Amino acid sequence: MHTFRNIRQILTYCKLSNLLQQNLAAGVHTGRLCLKQNKLWHLGKINHVALVSPDLDKSTALYRDVLGGDVSDKQALPEHGVTTVFVKLGDTKIELLHPLGDKSPIQSFLEKNKSGGMHHICIEVDNIEEAVKDLKAKKIRILSEEPRIGAHGKPVIFLHPKDCDGVLVELEQA
Amino acid sequence: MHTFRNIRQILTYCKLSNLLQQNLAAGVHTGRLCLKQNKLWHLGKINHVALVSPDLDKSTALYRDVLGGDVSDKQALPEHGVTTVFVKLGDTKIELLHPLGDKSPIQSFLEKNKSGGMHHICIEVDNIEEAVKDLKAKKIRILSEEPRIGAHGKPVIFLHPKDCDGVLVELEQA
Repeated sequence: MHTFRNIRQILTYCKLSNLLQQNLAAGVHTGRLCLKQNKLWHLGKINHVALVSPDLDKSTALYRDVLGGDVSDKQALPEHGVTTVFVKLGDTKIELLHPLGDKSPIQSFLEKNKSGGMHHICIEVDNIEEAVKDLKAKKIRILSEEPRIGAHGKPVIFLHPKDCDGVLVELEQA
Repeated sequence: MHTFRNIRQILTYCKLSNLLQQNLAAGVHTGRLCLKQNKLWHLGKINHVALVSPDLDKSTALYRDVLGGDVSDKQALPEHGVTTVFVKLGDTKIELLHPLGDKSPIQSFLEKNKSGGMHHICIEVDNIEEAVKDLKAKKIRILSEEPRIGAHGKPVIFLHPKDCDGVLVELEQA
């Protein structure tokens, strides 16, 4: 049982308690429990796995009619050069992408992978500004100088596949 | 308010209610609500996204020390020809894979993708036997005649990438 004398004491307790919980959550590695200090950002859940499709209607039919998934309507995002369809799976989703317009960032991927394929994985972070500082300090190359507004209207960065074992990793502000 | 005369009435009500809920959940597509009949299996959450790594220690260090993820110990699975490391992310995970032994099923992938890359996506299903019957009837090619026991000790099947827009899709019994 905790007793508090005033509101300031309660706020201090809550702040310390949250900080401790965050550090404990971040410190559970390889079966050991360790308390990390000064960790200013944390990985969250997988926001989506992006697949590039040569035929969005065919892919939509696969995930909706053949596999029975919960599939969104098609959405054109001309400012990102893609048309998207989402397949909701638990607390994450598959994002089906098809190039839109002349300068689509996924056009070259589709030319190299004519049948389509897995394009990138997007993981949420709780503080993208701190993630950028930390990752730059750790010599991980980021594909833009600053976070940009991504397809979901939130700041995102992409990490260089050469620094992530051949995988294009997107980090998105949760 | 419901009133029931006997236990049989209650059981019948519960069974019908569950069936209705399952069908409703399976029937929410493209913004429309439709009641599907006789759907004997359903897609669940993404169980994992599998990445092949040319250097498992380096990849483990990336996800644990650089990105601050919750990373498992290395696990050798000689019967599956892989060594694995899991990165827990929300209710799903990244599965880092490296070939083990002479006949590893991911050896050729690593030869084609020397820096590593995204290998497959695994989605849970609630009834894999019914999924197999249904998908065969829908002319989706499955890479084994019957479900096999996968790396997590549960029955799995792999769908042919040519029938899934260039993506290797694994379905695992939940």
